[in-house]
Amino acid sequence: MSFSTLSEFATLLAQAPQPDMAAREGAEARNAQLTKPAGSLGRLEEIAIWYAAWRGDARPKLAAPQVIVFAGNHGITAKGVSAFPPEVTVQMVANFEHGGAAINQLSRNAGAAMSVHAIDLDRPTADFTETAAMDEVDCVAALKTGWDAVDPQADLLVVGEMGIGNTTSAAAIGNALFGGAAADWVGRGTGVTDAGLQIKEDVVRAGVALHAGKDALGILAALGGREVAAMAGAIARARSLRIPVILDGFICSAAAATLEKTQAGALDHCIAGHQSDEAAHARLLEALGKEPLVSLGLRLGEGSGAALVIPLVRAAVECLSGMATFAEAGVAAGATEG
Amino acid sequence: MSFSTLSEFATLLAQAPQPDMAAREGAEARNAQLTKPAGSLGRLEEIAIWYAAWRGDARPKLAAPQVIVFAGNHGITAKGVSAFPPEVTVQMVANFEHGGAAINQLSRNAGAAMSVHAIDLDRPTADFTETAAMDEVDCVAALKTGWDAVDPQADLLVVGEMGIGNTTSAAAIGNALFGGAAADWVGRGTGVTDAGLQIKEDVVRAGVALHAGKDALGILAALGGREVAAMAGAIARARSLRIPVILDGFICSAAAATLEKTQAGALDHCIAGHQSDEAAHARLLEALGKEPLVSLGLRLGEGSGAALVIPLVRAAVECLSGMATFAEAGVAAGATEG
Repeated sequence: MSFSTLSEFATLLAQAPQPDMAAREGAEARNAQLTKPAGSLGRLEEIAIWYAAWRGDARPKLAAPQVIVFAGNHGITAKGVSAFPPEVTVQMVANFEHGGAAINQLSRNAGAAMSVHAIDLDRPTADFTETAAMDEVDCVAALKTGWDAVDPQADLLVVGEMGIGNTTSAAAIGNALFGGAAADWVGRGTGVTDAGLQIKEDVVRAGVALHAGKDALGILAALGGREVAAMAGAIARARSLRIPVILDGFICSAAAATLEKTQAGALDHCIAGHQSDEAAHARLLEALGKEPLVSLGLRLGEGSGAALVIPLVRAAVECLSGMATFAEAGVAAGATEG
Repeated sequence: MSFSTLSEFATLLAQAPQPDMAAREGAEARNAQLTKPAGSLGRLEEIAIWYAAWRGDARPKLAAPQVIVFAGNHGITAKGVSAFPPEVTVQMVANFEHGGAAINQLSRNAGAAMSVHAIDLDRPTADFTETAAMDEVDCVAALKTGWDAVDPQADLLVVGEMGIGNTTSAAAIGNALFGGAAADWVGRGTGVTDAGLQIKEDVVRAGVALHAGKDALGILAALGGREVAAMAGAIARARSLRIPVILDGFICSAAAATLEKTQAGALDHCIAGHQSDEAAHARLLEALGKEPLVSLGLRLGEGSGAALVIPLVRAAVECLSGMATFAEAGVAAGATEG
């Protein structure tokens, strides 16, 4: 299963597997018998059942979460859209490789395997206010980098990113896919000033206008970065393997949105890990119909908000699969509970 | 350090240790140098600094979380305030001991040691609409059960409970401490009907009226359960050991509130783990000035909501203590970030 054009990639999305309804029903039946009042674990119950359905196992385990961080550089940084120089991308990749970044700590805390893919950092994408950021060949290559990075043995996936300038790319993608004004989609990223914010808005408006009328994967190529396309590729690959995904913040959600706009339901195997402090993330999650698990003011990227909540998803699965039933425990409450 | 009267217990609260300001400043200084934009880990940064201050270590570890579940029986169940018969308390204690309950899975998921203390289950508290639920001797004994249950080597504490009828006890405590109408404080607990809800409201109103004018520890004795007093005792003991605490839901928060009302600041070593689906929990947290970490619709008790988020607190600590500084990582961003 592979692809060499955006059209072939779209076909794969259309042919993607669905959740296992028998496993879902089995998990629901099991959940109803566990030693707790019905519904008292709140959203954890829903998450566990969703996970069971995707794994095709009514009593699943969550033992091998994977975190993949993709990095790319953006031609648009020449316009001054970021508080940081583009050199920081490669410096942060070294930091990931040496274990010093937030995502390293969060992956270890979650018991997740973590890998880093720096994609052509010496070859930034083109300035999307002038031409497409990537041509089709480049975009397909980045999608394949993400596709190939997913471990088929993983049972939960988080994709993160590093790319100075990529909140501008994500804002442009969001605006192009879902409309509204450029100002609705731009925010301060990881620390931009008022002047920088105005530049971001102008750049997004110009980019969206230049690439108007393209389809969602065309928008990914035109306005995305290599790391953004790689995230989309990894999320699609996870779907093909029925590996559930926790979406990270604004950039990850923008990458994911290009899949959903290409094929409705393409993100059914994904939940939103957190609500980013980047203002437009709420808009994006609403457009995707995803309710975040937590809202703790993170705005770092790297996959940090999603890796943070891996233990919450595992907790949900552990409750479903590990708890005793009323019958097993000899607890009389099942029948009386209303 | 111990106590044999409620007055001596109040004196211990007044003499409790404060956070280490040098450790706090050290943690703040370290946090400012880590390889991330300032503030980009949101609330995790605040939690890590809070934890460092209480542990007296600017670069702390979180390696030994403890979960303690206290169980007690309530005379008030004779009034029909619960959907479950009181026998369920002892059945659930057996379930805790055999590893079958939600809190067992959540403790294991969090890497926490878990213990269960069933307190005189064959000796329910008195019906608080007729007399004090506990006399001073009983209340002090329950406080000491909690006090003694805390492992001095623990570095994070969660206290949970099991006690059929104890949402009614917690509602009465909340109403007695913070005022308002009985209806503001009662909810459906773990599954009560409309008729049951009216009974709960009447019972709370009667209990609060009967015990009006007592101080906060008097209210704990008059309206609490043994497990509620034990939770208060454990939270106080954690303070004396400078062990940070994650508060669980409605009942835990009601127990904690009796400490705060006795001695302002007595809960400075506590954060709110989650927002329970029990409606009055939001009211209680607001009165305590605590913002919950997550809100996922849990309403189970047992310490489940607090144990669930232990990994989030550990994530915060791991980031503070494990991340590289800009200087260590050779990342140029520190100076340019605004």
